[in-house]
Amino acid sequence: MSDNEHLEQFMRRAIRLATENVEAGCGGPFAAVVVQNGRIVAEGTNTVTSSCDPTAHAEINAIRSACRELGVFQLSDCDLYTTCEPCPMCLGALYWARPRRVYYAATRDDAAAVGFDDAYIYNELGNDPHKRALPMQQLLRAEAQESFRAWDAKQDRVEY
Amino acid sequence: MSDNEHLEQFMRRAIRLATENVEAGCGGPFAAVVVQNGRIVAEGTNTVTSSCDPTAHAEINAIRSACRELGVFQLSDCDLYTTCEPCPMCLGALYWARPRRVYYAATRDDAAAVGFDDAYIYNELGNDPHKRALPMQQLLRAEAQESFRAWDAKQDRVEY
Repeated sequence: MSDNEHLEQFMRRAIRLATENVEAGCGGPFAAVVVQNGRIVAEGTNTVTSSCDPTAHAEINAIRSACRELGVFQLSDCDLYTTCEPCPMCLGALYWARPRRVYYAATRDDAAAVGFDDAYIYNELGNDPHKRALPMQQLLRAEAQESFRAWDAKQDRVEY
Repeated sequence: MSDNEHLEQFMRRAIRLATENVEAGCGGPFAAVVVQNGRIVAEGTNTVTSSCDPTAHAEINAIRSACRELGVFQLSDCDLYTTCEPCPMCLGALYWARPRRVYYAATRDDAAAVGFDDAYIYNELGNDPHKRALPMQQLLRAEAQESFRAWDAKQDRVEY
């Protein structure tokens, strides 16, 4: 099997999971798999509506599942395959999870064409905070430094 | 109590939770509360390292907890108070959860000053995908449309 066929078999698995997820009524048409040393260690599909959790996107579910499975909070030696370009939430999650590489199939525009907000949210995040549709207001910035001082002073803190 | 004092009491509660979270060794110096009709319906702190979950930021935990508590997957009549400007993952999550308004205290630069990647990830998301530090590669875009067609054809789909 060529290198590319090897990669494609993982993506085909994810695409099958995404289609089955729709058919089963579990959520949106998205799935992801996490691969370590050529082996799938975790899978996730979008379960936003069935699990009442707006953060339960395929990538987030797959990352959480892989970390649980491997007992780690970073996926440094893993690759993630997702059926669609990650939305900003999921791309942010990937930066925190730090996999080696991400493979994706469809684009944010393909997702927008069937009614999903991914492209819209990318635009919003790029906007000046005061021009965003989600109103945000700052309060008590000075007081909040107390928590950061506690972190900075903690000798046995576990960084991530 | 003036309107602002009312808002500040929720933020002070979050700041206290964030500091306690550090002292208890549960994770980073961040907390969030979700408020509906002047009442806290859910709280969350950062538990990345203690729960082995890179997505377990304060806002994500608070959103998940509020949705579980209220049995919904959108927080349209809620406000979220967070001790720090949300990172891109959490801001993306807020766009999916759709609260009325977000209050935040510290900034991404305050977080960067004590070693957190929030500001860095904002910069990365703004970059052209091919210039990002996280390598991403597209595969099988055409095949992945199958899942979107299944979604589009599903009569009883639950949108979000």
